[in-house]
Amino acid sequence: MVKQVRAVRTRQALIRAAAEAFAHDGYARASLPAISKRAGVSAGALHFHFPSKDALASEIESGAARTVEEMTAHCRSTGGSALGVLVAAIRQLVVAFAADPVMRAGFALSGDPARDGGTAVVDSWHGWVRDVVAQAQEAGELTDDLSPECVAGAVVAATVGFEVLGSGDRDWLSKERMVEFWTCLLPRLATVPGPDLARVLEGEPTGDRDAENSMAGL
Amino acid sequence: MVKQVRAVRTRQALIRAAAEAFAHDGYARASLPAISKRAGVSAGALHFHFPSKDALASEIESGAARTVEEMTAHCRSTGGSALGVLVAAIRQLVVAFAADPVMRAGFALSGDPARDGGTAVVDSWHGWVRDVVAQAQEAGELTDDLSPECVAGAVVAATVGFEVLGSGDRDWLSKERMVEFWTCLLPRLATVPGPDLARVLEGEPTGDRDAENSMAGL
Repeated sequence: MVKQVRAVRTRQALIRAAAEAFAHDGYARASLPAISKRAGVSAGALHFHFPSKDALASEIESGAARTVEEMTAHCRSTGGSALGVLVAAIRQLVVAFAADPVMRAGFALSGDPARDGGTAVVDSWHGWVRDVVAQAQEAGELTDDLSPECVAGAVVAATVGFEVLGSGDRDWLSKERMVEFWTCLLPRLATVPGPDLARVLEGEPTGDRDAENSMAGL
Repeated sequence: MVKQVRAVRTRQALIRAAAEAFAHDGYARASLPAISKRAGVSAGALHFHFPSKDALASEIESGAARTVEEMTAHCRSTGGSALGVLVAAIRQLVVAFAADPVMRAGFALSGDPARDGGTAVVDSWHGWVRDVVAQAQEAGELTDDLSPECVAGAVVAATVGFEVLGSGDRDWLSKERMVEFWTCLLPRLATVPGPDLARVLEGEPTGDRDAENSMAGL
């Protein structure tokens, strides 16, 4: 194997192992020796790539933020109504909580009292939700007496709750829960008829094999 | 001071100090020496009352569960519609997140990966929400096509999210956020006209001076 390729793989293994450790044990309890062991690399290799636990956590937070960005950009690019984009993005987010330790850890670190700062993932998610609801409003899709701030607050609080509850019980991340959530909320948000929940939640091709497989399995 | 009274006060000071430490630093990072120091008692006194960090956390989880029970029982006793009781109980819960470190820590420990088990508070909260929504359904207050499970899922996810987000930014626990949340959700749940949000959220006397003061201050 070319040296550079091996370095990239080692780095990826470390990020994945650290994400699993942070999501499962919390930031404070996750230890660097356990992370290097889990990744199957030496302590020296870990320190070569990441000088500290903080550096690993920052890398994971950035990775989760990038995934949120790509995911939301992808959902936008599929066209459809703004509320349909919102429903699809939240479904993908919850699928990612179940399938991707970096996403799970990125959000968990945002709410982990042992990890000072690091709320960037949730903040950017909140900003995106507000924007897409504002677009729905401009397009006349949003019920008149609702504001983007109001809807974004409820939606972001619920998604943070799904991550926390889903870390203890995967059922909170199932498609059935999502259908229930939107059955509760969507008729209030959408000027009739709103996006077709079944179609959006069944998921059109996302171009992301992992996410599609996880979605099919949930 | 009579010896027994002093023992009760010491115990209370320890519980409060531990709750503050768990809520602020997380279970893993909170240390017994820091807790006894914060409570102003000796390490020996701490160990006399609580043999381990686990024992302190269990006491806090039980305390939070008791508060949830008393709070919900009180909300029920004020009469009014079942949906009005739900709105009032969630308002009191969020006020308690802001005012009472034991409530904050009780819920935070439920979602803390470093604290194995300990989801009892959220579970009993979830059960109560489902029950009160089922009562709303029986009383004909709930929109026909909604189930208690569906509503309880959305409401519990959001309340867990409010606690996590509120621990970093108190604005998530403000009355304005609650009004926004219910503005989003209540018209969907309630057969017209539903409870009077302003009256329920302004808060009738609760018999709990601390909670009333906090509510007034938020």
